[in-house]
Amino acid sequence: MNDTFLKACRGEKTAYTPVWIMRQAGRYLPEYQKVRGKVDFLTLCKTPELAAEVTIQPVEILKVDAAILFSDILIPVESMGMKLEFSENKGPILYDPIRDEIDVLKLKNIKPEEDVPFVAEAIKILTRELKVPLIGFSGAPFTLATYMIEGGSSKNYINTKRMMYQTPELFNNLMAKITDVVINYLHSQISAGVQAVQIFDSWAGILSPVDFQGFALPYVKKIISALKSKYDIPVIYFAFNGSTMLKLVKQSGADVLGLDWRIDIADAADAVNREVSLQGNLDPCTLFGTKDLIKARVANILNSAKGAKGHIFNLGHGILPETPVENAIAMVEAVHALIAR
Amino acid sequence: MNDTFLKACRGEKTAYTPVWIMRQAGRYLPEYQKVRGKVDFLTLCKTPELAAEVTIQPVEILKVDAAILFSDILIPVESMGMKLEFSENKGPILYDPIRDEIDVLKLKNIKPEEDVPFVAEAIKILTRELKVPLIGFSGAPFTLATYMIEGGSSKNYINTKRMMYQTPELFNNLMAKITDVVINYLHSQISAGVQAVQIFDSWAGILSPVDFQGFALPYVKKIISALKSKYDIPVIYFAFNGSTMLKLVKQSGADVLGLDWRIDIADAADAVNREVSLQGNLDPCTLFGTKDLIKARVANILNSAKGAKGHIFNLGHGILPETPVENAIAMVEAVHALIAR
Repeated sequence: MNDTFLKACRGEKTAYTPVWIMRQAGRYLPEYQKVRGKVDFLTLCKTPELAAEVTIQPVEILKVDAAILFSDILIPVESMGMKLEFSENKGPILYDPIRDEIDVLKLKNIKPEEDVPFVAEAIKILTRELKVPLIGFSGAPFTLATYMIEGGSSKNYINTKRMMYQTPELFNNLMAKITDVVINYLHSQISAGVQAVQIFDSWAGILSPVDFQGFALPYVKKIISALKSKYDIPVIYFAFNGSTMLKLVKQSGADVLGLDWRIDIADAADAVNREVSLQGNLDPCTLFGTKDLIKARVANILNSAKGAKGHIFNLGHGILPETPVENAIAMVEAVHALIAR
Repeated sequence: MNDTFLKACRGEKTAYTPVWIMRQAGRYLPEYQKVRGKVDFLTLCKTPELAAEVTIQPVEILKVDAAILFSDILIPVESMGMKLEFSENKGPILYDPIRDEIDVLKLKNIKPEEDVPFVAEAIKILTRELKVPLIGFSGAPFTLATYMIEGGSSKNYINTKRMMYQTPELFNNLMAKITDVVINYLHSQISAGVQAVQIFDSWAGILSPVDFQGFALPYVKKIISALKSKYDIPVIYFAFNGSTMLKLVKQSGADVLGLDWRIDIADAADAVNREVSLQGNLDPCTLFGTKDLIKARVANILNSAKGAKGHIFNLGHGILPETPVENAIAMVEAVHALIAR
């Protein structure tokens, strides 16, 4: 077992910087497209053998140091009782968005064994087959709440913020319900065998620091402390576009903070006082550049990260569907070749 | 003449914190909608009497301390030779986007007197009528380049970054041409009578610090130094979503830096070493909250800004079309009532 990734999460010395890629099991890979051509997106998420197959693909093709379960952050939201659909053009749609007390009351907690048995089954296949650690994941409560309130993606998140500002109690009730679901969901993934978890807070960055502190952070703290009280595995918290409030993000209690590409990783290490490991942070669009540029930018980041407690190389956001696979491979090779720490 | 805004730009003491709102002449105002109902958006920009009328509206309705010329950042791009259209749903469209050397070669510099005479005419009407300073503006070269390369708005800016990374010389040639246009354009606005200018870099925040420093910042520096060599008026530079790299943004040479709502303004004051004034930074969605919440958040920001060299209150982005006018008024009243400095 290659445990470089787990060591870096804990801030232990590693022979080289480990690397994986957010959304590495995805559309940029022809091998993924082939599997996806046979079933729709949700069926792929819910068929353990197929989810496991596409999870393994990038590990073999890119030689990354960790795998991440192929799934979607909205899977547990569907189990809470919302109708979920993925449209080719508009992304996820959640029908009958949550707007009032009755909507919130109707939401159920989940029983992972009954509601999402396919997740544990895929994890069990993967832990048998993989030679690298498997990362489980969940959306963070705030990010899940935005989808549930807006009914999908949004431009300005007016409905979410209106609920926060006009009826904070209702918003907090919703967040508390989602938090319980996320705790159950991650517990079940860890029981099934994942060796680390990442909490994706993709929309944390639409909040001002004061709103993040009041409306989002307490729930992430609660999740991480619940996990830490039962299991000793690394938790990564990725608050996308949240690098202006890293001191708050660090209070989550995560072992590793994910970073998008908007910050010099040396500044991030300063902001967190070198007390947690950092993950990131190459601009995904760098992979549309030349191989020389990719190498130079990888070297920059490895250099900048020298002062961090631990460093896991990654993109600053999910890999884009249009990315040339050979450039993703070149990036992984550069990370492994350039020993900067 | 109420010169509170100009004093705050220069970091001089003021009796209260001045306030204006980005996109204050806009769709949230029924009075604007009435004018706009008679002509299309571009005609409104190009008809001096109408542009002046909608520029004045919010000054009277909201009692703000500055006016900003009603126009659009893509007006000079049209004069460079690109066909511009505003679609109701998709925003601006620039036909035949810039992708290669020939496209760049075809772009013209502008002669403001011939190409955009309506801008100086509107400014002349406004300087006669207004009792508050008039702010002129331009898009920053990087932001204008993204529209020209993508042909409009974009999700991931792949075409822009591909040009930056694969053919940096071509990208820099384009940026140099746009920079010359912006200098001419702002010179003409200042000659006509605006008393401050704001440079909007709405898409600076999609860049990593290293790319901002290499591909965007040098051109902003060039513009500001050209303006400063001829005129002694305040320059505001607003790099939206750029608060993780304020030390670089400050190198622009601007008197005032605009801030979105992602940063505590006290942290921003620290980052710029209290050497420039700051503008911002209320989340525009706060105006969907209760009046009590609006007041509390205004007070927070005024408090946080106490240590800044100077402070101009504003939203952290343009006011949203759905905003209740009474809440915008409540915000302005709160800023004027709460004397925090």
